[in-house]
Amino acid sequence: MSNRAAIGVDVGGTTTKGGIVSSSGEVMTRVDIPTEVEAGTKSVISVVEELTQRIPDTGSDVAAIGIGAAGFVEHGAGRITFSPNISYGDAQLKSAVESRVDLPVTVDNDANAAAWGEYTFGAARGAKHLALLTLGTGIGSGFVVDGRVLRGFTGAGAEFGHTVIDPTGPPCQCGLRGCVEQLCSGQAVAREGRAAAERDRQSSILTFAGSLDAITAEHVGRAARQFDESAREVLRNAGTMLGIALANLINVFDPEVVVLAGGVIRSGEPMLGSARDELNKRLTAQRRRPTRLDVTVLGKDIGILGAAALALAESS
Amino acid sequence: MSNRAAIGVDVGGTTTKGGIVSSSGEVMTRVDIPTEVEAGTKSVISVVEELTQRIPDTGSDVAAIGIGAAGFVEHGAGRITFSPNISYGDAQLKSAVESRVDLPVTVDNDANAAAWGEYTFGAARGAKHLALLTLGTGIGSGFVVDGRVLRGFTGAGAEFGHTVIDPTGPPCQCGLRGCVEQLCSGQAVAREGRAAAERDRQSSILTFAGSLDAITAEHVGRAARQFDESAREVLRNAGTMLGIALANLINVFDPEVVVLAGGVIRSGEPMLGSARDELNKRLTAQRRRPTRLDVTVLGKDIGILGAAALALAESS
Repeated sequence: MSNRAAIGVDVGGTTTKGGIVSSSGEVMTRVDIPTEVEAGTKSVISVVEELTQRIPDTGSDVAAIGIGAAGFVEHGAGRITFSPNISYGDAQLKSAVESRVDLPVTVDNDANAAAWGEYTFGAARGAKHLALLTLGTGIGSGFVVDGRVLRGFTGAGAEFGHTVIDPTGPPCQCGLRGCVEQLCSGQAVAREGRAAAERDRQSSILTFAGSLDAITAEHVGRAARQFDESAREVLRNAGTMLGIALANLINVFDPEVVVLAGGVIRSGEPMLGSARDELNKRLTAQRRRPTRLDVTVLGKDIGILGAAALALAESS
Repeated sequence: MSNRAAIGVDVGGTTTKGGIVSSSGEVMTRVDIPTEVEAGTKSVISVVEELTQRIPDTGSDVAAIGIGAAGFVEHGAGRITFSPNISYGDAQLKSAVESRVDLPVTVDNDANAAAWGEYTFGAARGAKHLALLTLGTGIGSGFVVDGRVLRGFTGAGAEFGHTVIDPTGPPCQCGLRGCVEQLCSGQAVAREGRAAAERDRQSSILTFAGSLDAITAEHVGRAARQFDESAREVLRNAGTMLGIALANLINVFDPEVVVLAGGVIRSGEPMLGSARDELNKRLTAQRRRPTRLDVTVLGKDIGILGAAALALAESS
């Protein structure tokens, strides 16, 4: 039926966002609240309850609820088994929400949900083999393999951001060194931006940030757009490492399309350009076919849309 | 029915091997011929025709033919699109064989077939999420994700041996540097064994091999078993890199079990022991669950068994 819809919830470290999403991918109404980092499940329930009250206004027939959350998720049970930033209180997210609202609930890793959102509504629509990387403070990854989300045996798969491509590289919060996340995420760009500004005190990275400690990836991106060479070099290096990571990903998954999302992609050409160059150089050396590399068109709604898309798929 | 069987063919760079395999994984009869490296398809047809003549002797009901081959394989079409060592003449392997023999033919990458063999008959039986690495001269990999073989969009996936874990590492035939294959395969052990013997002329690696140029991974393994410290160090270093590679694999696939196969695993504890240690250290640092690491029980028949298992699964 044409007004079939789902609630999608995206649990972030600072904000829990939700929306009622139509089967064509329109977010009809939305709710944002600050995440209670010691009681993530309460935040989810607040968002869901608020949205259920708004269902009549949208005139839609909400069939299910989807929730995307960082960390390891046992998809079948709907249980969070490891979360890097949030305590959930009740980790049994599926049953906690289902006990409050009379709708089926599906829970997945947020990047898995985002990948499914790309498959259903986004740049990779219809591509049965796709990879999604979200380049934010950290790096999330989701893989659709032959039309199905890759989750692994315990729901701890698809952590491509924690594959190591430089065993002597910078230490990572995960306990390893030289993870992809430490080489081309927002925190990596910020770290190298600080180092660059220490070497080059004239860099507009420092002008934009005010002080070394305040430097973020966004300052590096702004400086690069004004042709600050120190900033451009930081982004080019991050892009080269991203290109290496992408070549690894393609050697494993051979996807039809790779979609990039997250704040870091707004750094633009110095980073994405050198990532593309490095990737193309590597695939050519290997006599592999070029792979489509797209940037998400779903914007900040990717989490809500992905979670809702999973709920729609699983309830149909 | 109890005497259901399939023909399995394993196309190697030097030998094309085939067998009639029962549904319980018994190889009832087998044929080995030298591979015609300029006409691989002819070799396959010779093996298949010889085996079909023997079907009556086995009393089995052969339902299908499976073929495993190195390189990129379009599974649906049964076409070899890239082969590192062999020219096939006719790359349309499926249709070429089906035009000679009245049985359905399925073609897959050899490591994909081996992974399916482990799933069906081997150490990973029943594990719906498994990874197989064959550590031979090169490194092959196959992944079963939620009970299905991962092939990718064009059949060029599951090339984990060509993921890069040290961008400044040794050059690889694939065109890149520091691929997993260059750090823990048989050729890597041989290369480092030669370097070790150059430094340590007393090493029994050199005694076993006779000359530097003749050194293979097997000589390094033999020397290590006699407690030659230079040989043991080569294998420990290769094992450490294997451990890093395995941690990457587990971060992506979260398999229930990883199965190791191939000649290099006979090098034994210096290599596998340090691989396990490195892997466990990394998974512990990441607070991940330990993953079962097994060695294949299918031995040299893994290729035949895997190809036959695929044929049985697809014809049932």
